[in-house]
Amino acid sequence: MNTETHIDAPLVLRSNAGGLVTLRLNRPQQFNALSEAMLAALQAQFDALADDPDVRCVVLAAEGRAFCAGHDLHEMQATRELDYYKQLFAQCSCVMRTIQELPVPVIARVHGIATAAGCQLVASCDLAIAGESARFAVSGINVGLFCATPAVALSRNVSAKRAFEILVTGRFIDAATAADWGLVNQAVADDALDDQLALLAQSIMDKSPTAVRYGKQMFYRQRQMALAEAYTYAGEVMAKNMMEEDAGEGVSAFLEKRPPQWQRPQ
Amino acid sequence: MNTETHIDAPLVLRSNAGGLVTLRLNRPQQFNALSEAMLAALQAQFDALADDPDVRCVVLAAEGRAFCAGHDLHEMQATRELDYYKQLFAQCSCVMRTIQELPVPVIARVHGIATAAGCQLVASCDLAIAGESARFAVSGINVGLFCATPAVALSRNVSAKRAFEILVTGRFIDAATAADWGLVNQAVADDALDDQLALLAQSIMDKSPTAVRYGKQMFYRQRQMALAEAYTYAGEVMAKNMMEEDAGEGVSAFLEKRPPQWQRPQ
Amino acid sequence: MNTETHIDAPLVLRSNAGGLVTLRLNRPQQFNALSEAMLAALQAQFDALADDPDVRCVVLAAEGRAFCAGHDLHEMQATRELDYYKQLFAQCSCVMRTIQELPVPVIARVHGIATAAGCQLVASCDLAIAGESARFAVSGINVGLFCATPAVALSRNVSAKRAFEILVTGRFIDAATAADWGLVNQAVADDALDDQLALLAQSIMDKSPTAVRYGKQMFYRQRQMALAEAYTYAGEVMAKNMMEEDAGEGVSAFLEKRPPQWQRPQ
Repeated sequence: MNTETHIDAPLVLRSNAGGLVTLRLNRPQQFNALSEAMLAALQAQFDALADDPDVRCVVLAAEGRAFCAGHDLHEMQATRELDYYKQLFAQCSCVMRTIQELPVPVIARVHGIATAAGCQLVASCDLAIAGESARFAVSGINVGLFCATPAVALSRNVSAKRAFEILVTGRFIDAATAADWGLVNQAVADDALDDQLALLAQSIMDKSPTAVRYGKQMFYRQRQMALAEAYTYAGEVMAKNMMEEDAGEGVSAFLEKRPPQWQRPQ
Repeated sequence: MNTETHIDAPLVLRSNAGGLVTLRLNRPQQFNALSEAMLAALQAQFDALADDPDVRCVVLAAEGRAFCAGHDLHEMQATRELDYYKQLFAQCSCVMRTIQELPVPVIARVHGIATAAGCQLVASCDLAIAGESARFAVSGINVGLFCATPAVALSRNVSAKRAFEILVTGRFIDAATAADWGLVNQAVADDALDDQLALLAQSIMDKSPTAVRYGKQMFYRQRQMALAEAYTYAGEVMAKNMMEEDAGEGVSAFLEKRPPQWQRPQ
Repeated sequence: MNTETHIDAPLVLRSNAGGLVTLRLNRPQQFNALSEAMLAALQAQFDALADDPDVRCVVLAAEGRAFCAGHDLHEMQATRELDYYKQLFAQCSCVMRTIQELPVPVIARVHGIATAAGCQLVASCDLAIAGESARFAVSGINVGLFCATPAVALSRNVSAKRAFEILVTGRFIDAATAADWGLVNQAVADDALDDQLALLAQSIMDKSPTAVRYGKQMFYRQRQMALAEAYTYAGEVMAKNMMEEDAGEGVSAFLEKRPPQWQRPQ
């Protein structure tokens, strides 16, 4: 199971349709396990997207039967050294934080299973849509390893007792439960997954790219601030956003009852 | 649309029934848009209520077909200057923070639409009841302006992925969804809105005014603290509350199985 | 009502089945009110459990018709002194924090009513299962005493408007609502309560005791940190967890498709 079946195939596939970039995890035989190489490939993709002004929205999807089964246990077991594990979890956390720091929204397209760091990937995306047969677990506890870094992302999406329960029991929740708890935005029929994803992505693509970028960065920063500080910061961001051509155009278009014409981001 | 149709009518109507104060936004032709003058009128009303020991509970309601459509886009577009926008959003944020800092509970009575800073008003109130036909959106993104200051209030009411979704798509949610997500306490039949509001307000009016004031201030302060600090602070507040005549009376009345007689706040 | 009917019976009963410890509040005539003596008895029990490496999971249950009715109002009313109340609420908060700081999970088994500091006990446990007829309130406001310290625990389990509503109205919510809001993990048929509790406890007992202990401590600490700090901390905890024999055994067992054999904690 540990050998790559398609040795020359890239670990992450990338496609681009007018600024809507889709990244597809491509280790289907290993349930898209997050090996060091896979983490490096994801980091490189996200780093490239962060610097590309033409990117408008990113979809994170996966090849094969599973979304992502978390870390590569064969690889982890091969080097039982503290410093190695520290470096590995730091590398993984960096990928997760990069998703949140990316200037454009990232939508997880979830099918099959999303477990451990795979569940953390879903939690780390800004938005997520799951097929109804998708299942989620933070299941490291089943192999004697509490999902500590996944807990960071999970507990910022899901209320305390629910997050702790699935962390300590390792049990699966279904897509409907994930939607009820706020881990994903929607659970939809499996055969409607791509259509619903396209609708959500298009809704973002229809917006001012400049305004979306102001918003995403601001959203997570203000969440970590006390209320007064958050308002000061958000007010300054909003004033700058209002000075942009797109806001002038958007407000004029609204008042004139016509569709707006957005600028390409600088 | 930008001209005031009732130039002499106050922008905020105030009524008082035994300490239950109702404020009604009164720019119905403009869907109660939060012009500078409207924000100033609201600020003045809340400032006056903050100093009035006879106020027990406040209802924030609105005239016309909408609760509040957010900022006045005509007015915003007329002065495209960074400092003007900074001042405007600071003025608006001050109103929102004043609601939370008011010593007594504020209940939003929501009908029609509550959009952008209008949705933020709902999020900023302590409690909210909506008629089933009410709809909510943080829709600035549709005009190229991400609802940054509304996001501050919204993301302290609603879980991360849900808040981000409606901020970045601008889409409406209905009253039942708003209740499911915790943005409002109840979604009720439109023709039951006033009755349900009266029941909730009366439930607060029946309580010790002193205890309610201790509680509201404490609630938001402790939320911003780490757990140990929050417990120290809350324990001190609760000890002071227990030393009040109302707590002595309330506990005695309970033990003696009779109704309590509350003091008027000092 | 204030006299102890079983003067020689311990206030907290303790039983142990292979590391699954059950504590039972035992002042049934007083609805298990948290008198100073009861708080001291609970503190002593939890302190002893914290130092016992053989404890794997704790259930907090109660004798009689109620889970816990909160503070002992007779006792509180007998000494109306600020310093006394400060000390009493500090003692109570210490018990609540000790539950969270206990190295193993604590599950509340809730039947009957859980009110005021009794509701806070439920909120302070890591997990909770309630019988469908159980009811919850933070009802101090009804006697002129806003449930300030219960609000600390409640508002870290339940969203803002819901928490504030039940704090300021004192109204009861049923078990299904408590589950919907995240105050408890499950609401189950009353006659299924013990079976469901046993399933949840067994699921924890089946896990590596070492990993569970790493996880519980980490979970609450990282919640109070900013994201970057939380990831650094959680990554270090997870690396240490991975170096433990149990993780090596668990991963090997998984890869070899056999059940793992966990170590006894040191």
